Amino acid sequence: MFTQLNKKLTLSSSFKTAPNIGLIKYWGKWNEREIIPLNTNIGVTLNPKDIFTTTTLTLNPETDKNQLLINGKDFHISNRIERLFGIFREQILQSKQFASNKYKNSPSDKPLGQVIPDIEKYGIRVESNNSFPTGSGLASSSSGLSALALCLQDILKTDIDVRYLSRIGSGSACRCLYGNLVLFPETISLESKRCLPYEVQSSKWLKDKVSIVILTDTHQGQKDVLSKDGMKLTWETSKLIQGRVRQYVEQHITELQSALEKQDFNKVMEIIIKDSNQFHATCMDTYPPLLYLNDFSRQIIKMVHIFNRNAKHIVGYTFDAGAHAVLLIHNDELQSFKKFLSEAENLFTKQKYIIPSQQFWTSIGEGPINLN
Amino acid sequence: MFTQLNKKLTLSSSFKTAPNIGLIKYWGKWNEREIIPLNTNIGVTLNPKDIFTTTTLTLNPETDKNQLLINGKDFHISNRIERLFGIFREQILQSKQFASNKYKNSPSDKPLGQVIPDIEKYGIRVESNNSFPTGSGLASSSSGLSALALCLQDILKTDIDVRYLSRIGSGSACRCLYGNLVLFPETISLESKRCLPYEVQSSKWLKDKVSIVILTDTHQGQKDVLSKDGMKLTWETSKLIQGRVRQYVEQHITELQSALEKQDFNKVMEIIIKDSNQFHATCMDTYPPLLYLNDFSRQIIKMVHIFNRNAKHIVGYTFDAGAHAVLLIHNDELQSFKKFLSEAENLFTKQKYIIPSQQFWTSIGEGPINLN
Repeated sequence: MFTQLNKKLTLSSSFKTAPNIGLIKYWGKWNEREIIPLNTNIGVTLNPKDIFTTTTLTLNPETDKNQLLINGKDFHISNRIERLFGIFREQILQSKQFASNKYKNSPSDKPLGQVIPDIEKYGIRVESNNSFPTGSGLASSSSGLSALALCLQDILKTDIDVRYLSRIGSGSACRCLYGNLVLFPETISLESKRCLPYEVQSSKWLKDKVSIVILTDTHQGQKDVLSKDGMKLTWETSKLIQGRVRQYVEQHITELQSALEKQDFNKVMEIIIKDSNQFHATCMDTYPPLLYLNDFSRQIIKMVHIFNRNAKHIVGYTFDAGAHAVLLIHNDELQSFKKFLSEAENLFTKQKYIIPSQQFWTSIGEGPINLN
Repeated sequence: MFTQLNKKLTLSSSFKTAPNIGLIKYWGKWNEREIIPLNTNIGVTLNPKDIFTTTTLTLNPETDKNQLLINGKDFHISNRIERLFGIFREQILQSKQFASNKYKNSPSDKPLGQVIPDIEKYGIRVESNNSFPTGSGLASSSSGLSALALCLQDILKTDIDVRYLSRIGSGSACRCLYGNLVLFPETISLESKRCLPYEVQSSKWLKDKVSIVILTDTHQGQKDVLSKDGMKLTWETSKLIQGRVRQYVEQHITELQSALEKQDFNKVMEIIIKDSNQFHATCMDTYPPLLYLNDFSRQIIKMVHIFNRNAKHIVGYTFDAGAHAVLLIHNDELQSFKKFLSEAENLFTKQKYIIPSQQFWTSIGEGPINLN
């Protein structure tokens, strides 16, 4: 939207997005710069009513400096974000070449470069606020980057693909652009533009059936190896990753899609569990091994499998590159599972039970919210 | 040896054996009854001067009941041991058929059945004492079963193969029959007699170079799933085990043999580490997952890899189906590693450092000691 600032035009855009949690995971990329994942992956978008990042992008005529604020604090602008800004400015310059009479009938669709002549020189200010604490294990960067891509496209009004913009921000960011389950396909074709996420239409029935809880253990140490470096190491040193990338992930994708078509809740949960464990297995097969799961995670896993023995609808779990758990619980089991969770301490007689230090409850979301 | 008991002949045999720790591991069997492992495996025999099981087998004319005492306590005689006793009695009966004049020149080699007429009716009493506590993570059953096989063969004096007797006791038991590194080959041939362990001759140089320490965490809980059941579950549910069994273990075996030939210490350690982690990766890929490594194990792993960054001779580690670690340390690094170990607490600032509750120091052994 346009606003007046010291008699100069300024403009801004705001989006609210929620993180998307990988269910069939990818770990490693064919192309680091273009973010082409080693394998097709599927994630679930959380509900932005409960867990969200609000991101506002403002073009500031007063300065040519860019600025990134996260939760009110100045942050270093990463190479990836610099690249997004670069593409943004390129698009503005290109749009200046368009014949201006093209927009006679709908002047509000005019490309930015034709509206404000020297806009490419304006400073870009991005302000992002998370509803959840950093260190909760939720990837705030992915929801923030997808919102940034949405803001850039909203302001540009050129036909640049927001899915592409979002993807080169980060792989999981592009999955935040849609609601429900989102598939991000792998392609090793040179036409990386084809590697774009889409909503899994057959997953919509799940939304009303599932509650999601993120259980975090704030006592976990810092990550020794960043995900970015970890996935490179796995690809370079693990033998087991070969079978996963070349065969087993595709099987999980096919099985999941089939279970979604059949609305087979337990099968969906089973595949989610298996994929998470297989991912962590390849991390363990890395040299040196990547050990993301700790005793807290192990207790959650054991607890869920004990609950599942007698459950009509089994509970699913998934772990990203960290110790925090994301559980998917059928709403019919919600009360019994909460009761079970509160009594879980009794399951660990010899080992100390590690009580989750934070619980974030949410559900499946419908995708980004446009705040403009 | 023969002794006199209440004017009746009794006889007994004693062996001292040490556990053999799997380095290239197997997990699952083609044939449960005959103990044909899914893949060729290699283990290292510990030094029976430090860590040992002393086993005495006595034939008792006073009773036809069998008895098993471990560390002075009566134990249930498992099906496997019953089978060993059955083979023992069969051998006695068969040996009665041998022409007795065959032994004219060496009467001391006479088969048992020809020495004591009704010996097959004697009760078998097995007494086994471990120098190390149960729950230390050391497999006392494997050293005990190999000693039992040695005692049975010693008393029988028939040409039954002690490697076979030991193997049908347990897979890792048959690796305890030799010193240094011992290879136990997989074969899916029907002639299971071919599936017999042998000492890896090229491993002898390692003996004088290596110290071994077993670090245990007595706070670990009981195993939820017995190894026997766990390996079945892995074979039935893990996808990653396929690549391991059909390809990667063989690679590890070949690489290890080549590194042993070249006396490449660091390469030997690296392969040992990788095989242990790959084994635990397939455990994690099991449904439900088998989570043997806990925070104690993770700390040991991280610690070793930090030490290895600057070490001339790297430290190797291996974990069986439990949280306890077995470390292999080059004697030239022994002092610096012990110092590092005592200061390791500082490596874990946020997480509580779990101090090993027991340390057992030993070296590579030369095989069973005949106490007769």
